[in-house]
Amino acid sequence: MENFTFHNPTRIVFGKGTEDKVGTEVKRHTSKVLLHYGTGSIIKSGLYQKVIDSLSKSGIEYIELPGAMPNPRLSLVQEGIDICKKEKIGFILAVGGGSAIDSAKAIAVGTCYEGNVWDFFDQKAQPVEALGVGVILTIPAAGSEMSNSMVITNEDGWFKRGCTTEIVRPKFAIMNPEITCTLSDYQTVCGIADIMAHVMERYFTNSTNVDFTDRLCEATMRAVIHNALLVLNNPHDYNARAEIMWAGTIAHNDLLSCGRIGDWSSHQIEHELSGIYDVPHGAGLSVVFPAWMKYVYRHDVTRFAQFAVRVFGVDYSFASPEVTALEGIGRLKQFFKSIGLPVSLKELDIQDDRLEEMAQKCKIVNKQEGTIGNFVKLNQQDILNILKSAL
Amino acid sequence: MENFTFHNPTRIVFGKGTEDKVGTEVKRHTSKVLLHYGTGSIIKSGLYQKVIDSLSKSGIEYIELPGAMPNPRLSLVQEGIDICKKEKIGFILAVGGGSAIDSAKAIAVGTCYEGNVWDFFDQKAQPVEALGVGVILTIPAAGSEMSNSMVITNEDGWFKRGCTTEIVRPKFAIMNPEITCTLSDYQTVCGIADIMAHVMERYFTNSTNVDFTDRLCEATMRAVIHNALLVLNNPHDYNARAEIMWAGTIAHNDLLSCGRIGDWSSHQIEHELSGIYDVPHGAGLSVVFPAWMKYVYRHDVTRFAQFAVRVFGVDYSFASPEVTALEGIGRLKQFFKSIGLPVSLKELDIQDDRLEEMAQKCKIVNKQEGTIGNFVKLNQQDILNILKSAL
Repeated sequence: MENFTFHNPTRIVFGKGTEDKVGTEVKRHTSKVLLHYGTGSIIKSGLYQKVIDSLSKSGIEYIELPGAMPNPRLSLVQEGIDICKKEKIGFILAVGGGSAIDSAKAIAVGTCYEGNVWDFFDQKAQPVEALGVGVILTIPAAGSEMSNSMVITNEDGWFKRGCTTEIVRPKFAIMNPEITCTLSDYQTVCGIADIMAHVMERYFTNSTNVDFTDRLCEATMRAVIHNALLVLNNPHDYNARAEIMWAGTIAHNDLLSCGRIGDWSSHQIEHELSGIYDVPHGAGLSVVFPAWMKYVYRHDVTRFAQFAVRVFGVDYSFASPEVTALEGIGRLKQFFKSIGLPVSLKELDIQDDRLEEMAQKCKIVNKQEGTIGNFVKLNQQDILNILKSAL
Repeated sequence: MENFTFHNPTRIVFGKGTEDKVGTEVKRHTSKVLLHYGTGSIIKSGLYQKVIDSLSKSGIEYIELPGAMPNPRLSLVQEGIDICKKEKIGFILAVGGGSAIDSAKAIAVGTCYEGNVWDFFDQKAQPVEALGVGVILTIPAAGSEMSNSMVITNEDGWFKRGCTTEIVRPKFAIMNPEITCTLSDYQTVCGIADIMAHVMERYFTNSTNVDFTDRLCEATMRAVIHNALLVLNNPHDYNARAEIMWAGTIAHNDLLSCGRIGDWSSHQIEHELSGIYDVPHGAGLSVVFPAWMKYVYRHDVTRFAQFAVRVFGVDYSFASPEVTALEGIGRLKQFFKSIGLPVSLKELDIQDDRLEEMAQKCKIVNKQEGTIGNFVKLNQQDILNILKSAL
């Protein structure tokens, strides 16, 4: 087990009707916020009005910035920074999924910085100060509501890049699973792929003696798989929605990273897909992750066999652990397919004409080494091989 | 799933050599502390000197209060309060196990209160303010290093009572598993019983649709059981010690309570045992818990069967879930016995002469209702029956 520091002070307010508490939660921090949200679905659903009512009741002044979209854009972040600076706003309330939250986090660090906020995503600078961010979560997926990271897409070159810093963990996250009952099946399953991927990125590690966190990861994945099927059967199953929503937070709040070093290659390869093709992150992950697994499993057959047995209940083959390992990868792929996710680039309408470009862009995420990943370090050719195998 | 709030801002610094960081951690909060510890084992082990060196290096002034002992006493808490008030100390550093930490927490709330600190344990008042508390953990057991609760024993009548308040969660907890390698086998297994009990108190619930937290609980218990055997086989197994230490924190930091209401009868019954007889809390729990289970399992045979199958790998009897449930209770008892814990009052040298007195004192923990527990509400006669069955 590796030495670690764990410090996650985000306050979670979870359950039915909790959005009505947003005024009270914001009031602990400020009396003027930037209200940041997406493209209007919260207005249709009535959530917007509830938020406004609660803020007004607590005497919170707000300035709105709608328009956050999947794979959130740098230009909107810049707009938010300009508003916060001009209006002297000290707190951002994000209402939405990972896109609105990540966008809010980027505005939060950008407002406290003299230079270009993209510096933080381009490894030119590290944030040292941030405005506070609060969240009302509407889509369980990104885990950004309790995480220390954000991902932004720069339209100039369609670079999708992440930045990790403790100062962006939200002050609070309000999570009402009822709100998620109206998500489409496709939004739901894309979220599920993202949640599964967050756990798997941590699960496939070279850190040894990580028994307890292995088991916590397995428990999380089993709960997600079990409840995914329930939700697709009945989208209004509150309890199954609640399990997935909470699992989505735990999957990415760093509890499951304690004492272990994760991989993150699949995420980085997927960022190239959704950066260029604007596909949902979860759909990109359900294509990339099994392909990555097949490419690297020989590096630690035992770990992949454990994954197969403990997560998918595969019968362990004592004669050939490799058979078990491969069966586990197959089961994951089957699971993704069974809930309606793509498992090949073709299903995302992505051809082979820009694979080289993506592999080249992806490699330079880590400028020094020119490789990505920790479980297995992948160079440009490896990335290309994985993308080709996913066609 | 029940609505819940989860907010745990304790900063965990975990791993080899981390005690050397105590000066830096304290410095974030203060430059003068009350250094509270036990009966000298930290001096023998060399930990004391390391702590002093680190504090001095960071320019931290300290006043010492040694003497914390198992089932920590109100009189020492009072002494600590007097010192903090007189010396104008604003932060307490506890070095030890649950006793030193709970004692420090009680000093922290008592210093900010004009009345008698016992009011908080006697349900006469709720704390509203507390000094900061930091921790260097030496015994994985109580989970107090990241919890919102404390238990103190009042020598006047030997009442052992708890108090729960968010304001006592430690600011930081330094956890080096190396330090725990010199614990005796008996200290180790008493800690393991306490950790298991913290999970089981949460696991046996009437809250429905708690699939994810069920699985997290099961993961924690399996990790503890697996690593308990490794540690007893080799007390210097750093990795197994580390797994148990981290599991002990997670068992009681409220993550496993999210969305569910726990029971806590067994803890309250045990407090009467250790209040009067001064037995180790964990040893009392290994006696009381299986007796409680046997007394209440018919209330929810399915839950006990799930416990048996998922925690102890019992083969599920489709013909008779009750057989499975009972087998699970038997396996828990066997596990406790196999690691050297008592499973009867006799083994603790406790006879039947004060059982009525304990049942009577226990019942009044909850003054209004006169019952304890949530999974099954137990009255005085029930408590007596459980104690008798544990003889």
